[in-house]
Amino acid sequence: MKLKPILSALLLTAARLSASAQNTDSLELRKIYDEALVNGKAYESLHYLCKNIGQRISGSDNAQKAVEWGKKLMESYGFDKVYLQPIMVPHWVRGEKEQGFIINGKTRTPVALVALGMSVATPKEGITAEVIELHSLKELETLGADKIKGKIVFFNRPFDERFIEAGSAYGTAGDQRNLGPGAASKYGAVAVIVRSLTSALDNYPHTGATNYGTNTPIPAAALSTIAANKLSETIKAANGKPVQFFLKDNCQTLPDAPSFNVVGELTGTENPNQFITVGGHLDSWDLAEGAHDDGTGVMQSAEVLRIFKATGYRPKHTLRAVFFMNEENGGRGGKKYAELAAQNKEEHIAAIETDEGGFTPRGFSFQGASPEFLKQINANWRSLFAPYEADMLVAGGSGSDIGPLKGTQPSAVLIGFRPDSQRYFDIHHTPNDVFENVNKRELELGAASIASLVYLIDQHGLKF
Amino acid sequence: MKLKPILSALLLTAARLSASAQNTDSLELRKIYDEALVNGKAYESLHYLCKNIGQRISGSDNAQKAVEWGKKLMESYGFDKVYLQPIMVPHWVRGEKEQGFIINGKTRTPVALVALGMSVATPKEGITAEVIELHSLKELETLGADKIKGKIVFFNRPFDERFIEAGSAYGTAGDQRNLGPGAASKYGAVAVIVRSLTSALDNYPHTGATNYGTNTPIPAAALSTIAANKLSETIKAANGKPVQFFLKDNCQTLPDAPSFNVVGELTGTENPNQFITVGGHLDSWDLAEGAHDDGTGVMQSAEVLRIFKATGYRPKHTLRAVFFMNEENGGRGGKKYAELAAQNKEEHIAAIETDEGGFTPRGFSFQGASPEFLKQINANWRSLFAPYEADMLVAGGSGSDIGPLKGTQPSAVLIGFRPDSQRYFDIHHTPNDVFENVNKRELELGAASIASLVYLIDQHGLKF
Repeated sequence: MKLKPILSALLLTAARLSASAQNTDSLELRKIYDEALVNGKAYESLHYLCKNIGQRISGSDNAQKAVEWGKKLMESYGFDKVYLQPIMVPHWVRGEKEQGFIINGKTRTPVALVALGMSVATPKEGITAEVIELHSLKELETLGADKIKGKIVFFNRPFDERFIEAGSAYGTAGDQRNLGPGAASKYGAVAVIVRSLTSALDNYPHTGATNYGTNTPIPAAALSTIAANKLSETIKAANGKPVQFFLKDNCQTLPDAPSFNVVGELTGTENPNQFITVGGHLDSWDLAEGAHDDGTGVMQSAEVLRIFKATGYRPKHTLRAVFFMNEENGGRGGKKYAELAAQNKEEHIAAIETDEGGFTPRGFSFQGASPEFLKQINANWRSLFAPYEADMLVAGGSGSDIGPLKGTQPSAVLIGFRPDSQRYFDIHHTPNDVFENVNKRELELGAASIASLVYLIDQHGLKF
Repeated sequence: MKLKPILSALLLTAARLSASAQNTDSLELRKIYDEALVNGKAYESLHYLCKNIGQRISGSDNAQKAVEWGKKLMESYGFDKVYLQPIMVPHWVRGEKEQGFIINGKTRTPVALVALGMSVATPKEGITAEVIELHSLKELETLGADKIKGKIVFFNRPFDERFIEAGSAYGTAGDQRNLGPGAASKYGAVAVIVRSLTSALDNYPHTGATNYGTNTPIPAAALSTIAANKLSETIKAANGKPVQFFLKDNCQTLPDAPSFNVVGELTGTENPNQFITVGGHLDSWDLAEGAHDDGTGVMQSAEVLRIFKATGYRPKHTLRAVFFMNEENGGRGGKKYAELAAQNKEEHIAAIETDEGGFTPRGFSFQGASPEFLKQINANWRSLFAPYEADMLVAGGSGSDIGPLKGTQPSAVLIGFRPDSQRYFDIHHTPNDVFENVNKRELELGAASIASLVYLIDQHGLKF
């Protein structure tokens, strides 16, 4: 009976300590958000990247300019270390503007299309062939080589609009672009055209990488959704009579080119060889400014460290901002980063990737998180994020640049930043991915959310 | 002791019943979202309203066109009743394009500005006077009539960027526009110019109503944020030397004009005289298409009832979609609606207003909600909204059109639909409030969220 009051007192002290830790954390988060919203630099830096450098596909002169500028930017922020990690990257060039026509009897209707990234060229005179409309890769198998050989395969499965997150619709429609051309080649198709991966009904085709695997590369292009509907209607109206398609592109894959990841660090005061990494990718597709994909991600990554400098927070662990190179068509930067981490015997506690656009933050997804981990992290931290409306802490993917760390840093928790997903695929991989489509506050709120998570991990770890 | 197993069994049954109710609800919500996302009509209807009718300020021909079209639209959706509620509305017209100049010595610099709604005209030759920069209405008091008399008062307090919700920044800066001109008039100011109510740094001035109260009306206009900064810098650089401003507008308030609220109903099967109302406002400012303000709100209101028609759901209570008239400069539609509700002895269980833009839904705010109410509604319904990421059920405002119901329907729960707030004040009351700035899925998700809440209220009431 004597123990009881003592136990109560101890519990009370523990509760007070925990309440006071919560209070310290909540004050620190408020500081982080204030710094991002009042003195944020991400937006003006993004403006420079988009307007003074612009498109920066791997291997291009602009990619090199972006690397040099990115290094200078992080140096100007006063980080403890800023350096480059050399890599070799694929060097694909689009060449002249692609051409596409629907040929229905004597009618040739030009349509909006762009070659997929890594596509090979058509013969100089283009390819004309009968087009066959499919809705899944499985249909290739069902139909077999007899029906596919010599034809242009048209994958036309639209986004499933029932998904609440647009990223899920992208994920489930994506095989048509990623794997469709390689798969159709196996069955003797001469080219592949794919419906653009978007909900938007407009005339902007969306590029994006295709991966032929070990199959013979064949020319591959994306149609705008309006063009895809037009082609589908034409085929339907032809009522069994063959409809042809003309495709011409002169894409080329040049020899691999030298490039770099750009890395900035704030050295940890207690555990300098333990790392918390935040990254996005510096390369972009060649059609626009790569504003949301992924200019916002790299600018947020640098901003996270800048916020800590500005608020005077000294991290226990070393914090890294990484501008990965070559996410779009090869992932060489991410692979190299993981390789070097192993080589240098670094220990990564956590890595956070921001590559889903600079939209209003909703929370984070934790790769391979157990129900117990999710329960604990929500019990401990959700209420801290709630005032900022960025408190979805869920299981899910992280990102393709930090993904390779899974192999070399088994104890690292891989985390994906989750912004609102609705607008991303309207502009993703199109000429509309420009600075004007980024909202300053959304970008800044995202940076603050990521910085908040980094702060909490730095303070309390992730051992739930 | 005998009772125990029986009680357990009863509790188990209750738990099962409750689980099965939750399951029914969750299936119904999924149906609602699927209908909105796959067969939604809100986006194409909004396109018509924006592009074929356009701006529709109270008393204008376009407002009348919008009323007639709105009625036809709801009739075409097959609602049980569609009718008009006649009202008289203020009829303010902007007249010729306003002019504004900063006059600094011999330099006249033209700036982007628009008259505030309900502003009076300047003399034909305009007003030229010394400008005095203030940051709050309180400063009028501090300075007194001596310092204000004969001057143009320039209210230049920017948005406080530390707010997470942009609506809070709007709310706290808004007195400068709403009340500033009337207050400055009391101290003898000859005109008022106000910094536009936005975070965006650009050259688009934002209009919006001013309310002179019982004070003598003086001309009032909003400067773009770039113009406001320019004027402030000019005053600062003049270092005490007076800077003048020239303002010219010929706004006019004509006699009140006849107009209408448009009302559509699905009659309740069990309690037809108990109402759940969803509404937005049909009128808009005269500068653009009123896409987000509040074309999205009216289209969502009609869509909610259309969804129930399409899914075959028969409501127990009568559901109403209301297109309120004159929210922007008078609120006559909202007042009339409340008046008629009382006159017709209607009982409103709940009213939901959607007038914060057609952005990604985040949840709902419940006006005057007690902590216990919030606790219960979250315990009962939050998990149902969580899969749709629209599960913020919080205390807060509802809206100015349903606000008057507070007086005549004391038991009605007044609810505000809460979409993401970050982009709204970039375009609010400017020429950029156009259809192109609305995202189809965001609009549809909002309609589905509201329909889901209406469904839950219809099934379970709001007696927490």
